[in-house]
Amino acid sequence: MGTQKKADILVIGGSAAGLVSAMTAKANHPDKKVMLIRKEAKVMIPCGIPYIFGSLDGTDQNILPDAGLEGLGVEICIDTVNAIDAEKQLCETQSGDSIVYDKMIMATGSQPFVPSWLVGAELKNVFTIPKNKVYLDELMAKLSEMDRVIVVGAGFIGVETSDELNKSGKKITLVEIQDRILGAAFDDDIAGVAQEKLAARGVNILTGVGIKAIEGDGKVEAVQLSDGQRLKADAVILSMGYRPNVALAKAMGLKINDLGYIAVDEYMRTSAANVFAAGDCAGKRDFATGKLATTMLASTACAEARVAGLNLYSLSTVRSFKGTIGIYSTNIGESSYGVAGLTEGGARKEGFEIITGSFTGMDRHPGKLAGAHQQTVKLIVSKECGRILGGEVIGGTSVGELINVIGFIIQGGMTLNDLLVSQIGTQPMLTASPAAYPLIKAAEVIARKLK
Amino acid sequence: MGTQKKADILVIGGSAAGLVSAMTAKANHPDKKVMLIRKEAKVMIPCGIPYIFGSLDGTDQNILPDAGLEGLGVEICIDTVNAIDAEKQLCETQSGDSIVYDKMIMATGSQPFVPSWLVGAELKNVFTIPKNKVYLDELMAKLSEMDRVIVVGAGFIGVETSDELNKSGKKITLVEIQDRILGAAFDDDIAGVAQEKLAARGVNILTGVGIKAIEGDGKVEAVQLSDGQRLKADAVILSMGYRPNVALAKAMGLKINDLGYIAVDEYMRTSAANVFAAGDCAGKRDFATGKLATTMLASTACAEARVAGLNLYSLSTVRSFKGTIGIYSTNIGESSYGVAGLTEGGARKEGFEIITGSFTGMDRHPGKLAGAHQQTVKLIVSKECGRILGGEVIGGTSVGELINVIGFIIQGGMTLNDLLVSQIGTQPMLTASPAAYPLIKAAEVIARKLK
Repeated sequence: MGTQKKADILVIGGSAAGLVSAMTAKANHPDKKVMLIRKEAKVMIPCGIPYIFGSLDGTDQNILPDAGLEGLGVEICIDTVNAIDAEKQLCETQSGDSIVYDKMIMATGSQPFVPSWLVGAELKNVFTIPKNKVYLDELMAKLSEMDRVIVVGAGFIGVETSDELNKSGKKITLVEIQDRILGAAFDDDIAGVAQEKLAARGVNILTGVGIKAIEGDGKVEAVQLSDGQRLKADAVILSMGYRPNVALAKAMGLKINDLGYIAVDEYMRTSAANVFAAGDCAGKRDFATGKLATTMLASTACAEARVAGLNLYSLSTVRSFKGTIGIYSTNIGESSYGVAGLTEGGARKEGFEIITGSFTGMDRHPGKLAGAHQQTVKLIVSKECGRILGGEVIGGTSVGELINVIGFIIQGGMTLNDLLVSQIGTQPMLTASPAAYPLIKAAEVIARKLK
Repeated sequence: MGTQKKADILVIGGSAAGLVSAMTAKANHPDKKVMLIRKEAKVMIPCGIPYIFGSLDGTDQNILPDAGLEGLGVEICIDTVNAIDAEKQLCETQSGDSIVYDKMIMATGSQPFVPSWLVGAELKNVFTIPKNKVYLDELMAKLSEMDRVIVVGAGFIGVETSDELNKSGKKITLVEIQDRILGAAFDDDIAGVAQEKLAARGVNILTGVGIKAIEGDGKVEAVQLSDGQRLKADAVILSMGYRPNVALAKAMGLKINDLGYIAVDEYMRTSAANVFAAGDCAGKRDFATGKLATTMLASTACAEARVAGLNLYSLSTVRSFKGTIGIYSTNIGESSYGVAGLTEGGARKEGFEIITGSFTGMDRHPGKLAGAHQQTVKLIVSKECGRILGGEVIGGTSVGELINVIGFIIQGGMTLNDLLVSQIGTQPMLTASPAAYPLIKAAEVIARKLK
């Protein structure tokens, strides 16, 4: 028999959303007892996972530390939640404990998607990339004896994993059904540059072609593609997207939205009293259109978790979340790629009347300084009202924060004119020239098009 | 006898403000004849100058290219303007030409300040750092035979020059009358870190002590400091600030403001009809207080130049400049430092009721990734209204754009609450963790202090 416990605030899940919502809840309600239940003894830093295959020395270097939780006094339980009674506000765990909660935050995350039609997905040496240390350690051990790896799906996880495995000496083929790698995130002109870069680094990239079946006698031997090609392989890594973990939420009667995520309001409240949700399992609405969205990002999860943790006991109207703006960046060799808000393609598809402008310069000035990298900024602007709807960037490592500059411009509701008269800081070793700062120059390009 | 010329738009000065105002003017008024007069055959990239002493291979690698001007069809005249008749809209040059203008932009810049009381400033091997290639080439040639260099004044130019000369093998002593290097720009807690870093790289730093006199028989032999110390030296570099070049403006009758800059309105218009001013010579008002300010930054100059170039023939009310927000960054070895808006000290001095918060994390995640650097963000927030007034950052190379993130947050009028619910993009190789992103965590620290 398990024990009866009581938590003022119970968080289910220990990845980005769970961690941040528990920490925010405890920091802002220090008198409350905050408990976090998670399955994993050690939690992976989600976005760091691709780097365990090359840049990091295994999963032990990619642990999300418990020090922050412990320092604040959050109680951590390693256990699995079996069922929740929403009316009694009671949670039953695998170890037999029952926990009564006052407030609850569901942060159950997501898991890799494997299409049911995929023949051979059950073969040995077919892998996915879940946020699970035990699984990943096993995966790495097995891959260490293998040479030819086929990665299926060229989203961020597929691309970063391919680049890292390639760096570690494997023969990588990356298969993507869309016309470009990262095609769901970037416009073709930007994604094309990233694709060339990845190919130049030695990854064999096949785009516009899907996987049909995985062949083998017990274990992987080859992959059949939609165009009839047959590729020999020692292992297959499926990175075909992730799906929200909502089984527990469904079972307890929470409303699920049309895209299969837990339905939430602006304050991350679910349909059940005192139950919040945050992160990959929680519903999102697009920043620009208000439509339901499928964004799954640790940074988004953390933003949602802060909103949930801050608003558990009382709401502050200024703390509304205003929808999800996807801000992504990635790195291929010495080049980096970022996108925030709507792409050109995405904006047109939604029916926005837009105008775009790009500018390419160098990210140090003079450009002859060692370490300088070409930098391209593309902006997507509403033609009528001038609002900045989105931006895409190619450059060196400063892309990670430059895309956040654009993210704040979008979130701040800034317009083309705001940008034209805005002030920036520049420094030879750190940024582009003030006279040719690509973000501002791209705005100028658009302003002239509008004349 | 010179020739009579006519320019629709005449720009005087060829550095950042001159270049950008001429390019903006021509790009937005392609039918107008735009002429740029400057003294220098080849123009230095202003902020790149410190790097000619180490990271760059001399001044030839630090040329502001003419290609942008030429590509648009701006006429470049290498000449010196002797006098301007504001009523006749006529400009006389040293070569004897007279140019009638329709609109004029004064971008005459600034020059190094040497205090009149400084004994020995006329000695051989006492140098300043003007934006003049011929002078700098001579300076470098002379320095190449010298060993012990004393740099006086630890603003950005003094610090960057000291670091670069030290890197190139000279014995550098940096003398600063304030208590900390970069003390005019950063709060003590941030400036102290920069100072330790520069000292650890081998620069001998003397703070809280001024220069009294330079001694020598014809050429520099030693420097007398205000505390009685006498330091032997082969050369002295005075980096004691810059003063606006306003002689021409004064002579033509333009109104000069109380700080000695050309008085301008929100659209960079001077007191004379059809005459604009931009850059170091033009008056500035502080973003937070509206008071006259002395900010001299190439990035500010470029922002002003855009405003001038856009508004020559008609004003657009949305294009007001809203005052000057100083956004600075610099780099010492692998560490970088940035500041935007008000510092804690500056805000208190102005009488703002403020609250501050800092957070230190790593700029990659996990922090064990190669190239990761500690990152500290400090925010300065208005206690009552929550407006973000300023920020300071220590970190790796991403500081250059991270300080622009804070710059846009300030310019966008964002508040602490905006920041708490804001969304950022993160990536292991490029940014801090989303769960411990120092900018957001610093905001959380402040929010908790306000409870």
